[in-house]
Amino acid sequence: MTGSDRPSALDPAVAARLKRGADGLVPAIAQQYDTGEVLMLGWMDDEALHRTLTTGRCTYWSRSRQEYWVKGDTSGHVQLVKSVALDCDADTILVKVDQVGAACHTGDRTCFDADVLPLGR
Amino acid sequence: MTGSDRPSALDPAVAARLKRGADGLVPAIAQQYDTGEVLMLGWMDDEALHRTLTTGRCTYWSRSRQEYWVKGDTSGHVQLVKSVALDCDADTILVKVDQVGAACHTGDRTCFDADVLPLGR
Repeated sequence: MTGSDRPSALDPAVAARLKRGADGLVPAIAQQYDTGEVLMLGWMDDEALHRTLTTGRCTYWSRSRQEYWVKGDTSGHVQLVKSVALDCDADTILVKVDQVGAACHTGDRTCFDADVLPLGR
Repeated sequence: MTGSDRPSALDPAVAARLKRGADGLVPAIAQQYDTGEVLMLGWMDDEALHRTLTTGRCTYWSRSRQEYWVKGDTSGHVQLVKSVALDCDADTILVKVDQVGAACHTGDRTCFDADVLPLGR
């Protein structure tokens, strides 16, 4: 059961324990492997996770475009996969990557650089 | 519009740009502020974000228990809030915290320590 109707070659042992949302997707955090920067959060279905594990390039499912999306295919700002881990509930993915260039489509290094919220109110 | 029927005191300027999932929730990444470790991912609605911004302690919405959950209230493993940021699409939250003790209910320092997936197959 992949939670979606898209076929996947994901290792059945991983697929069996992966816990997906109602839309068949799992949030995937991309982190720069050496500096620890949190770069962005994307979404993966089983096949996106499979491609991320086997191609060395981070692949997400685009919720807006409803298609697979290899990070950097358009921008050149690829994410080279260093390691992939599931969390204790198997409902979140952490991908440590080497980010080429900016992770954010705005040109910022990370997607979290621009909108820091005030504390205390 | 909060995306849920729970009232919230969140700053309307923040609420107006926050983009929630169909369940009214936004994924929130907790990161250790000094080491950069990604500790866990939780979920926040407007009020959980408001409490996180104003109390100095990370507060999540528990999807399984359907209630607010102040991290560490049971375990003592609190998350002291250092900064909070939205991503470029305002659909993900990054909270930098000082984690007291273990972030993971298993006793591991982070929720991503135990299940590293093999690459290349």
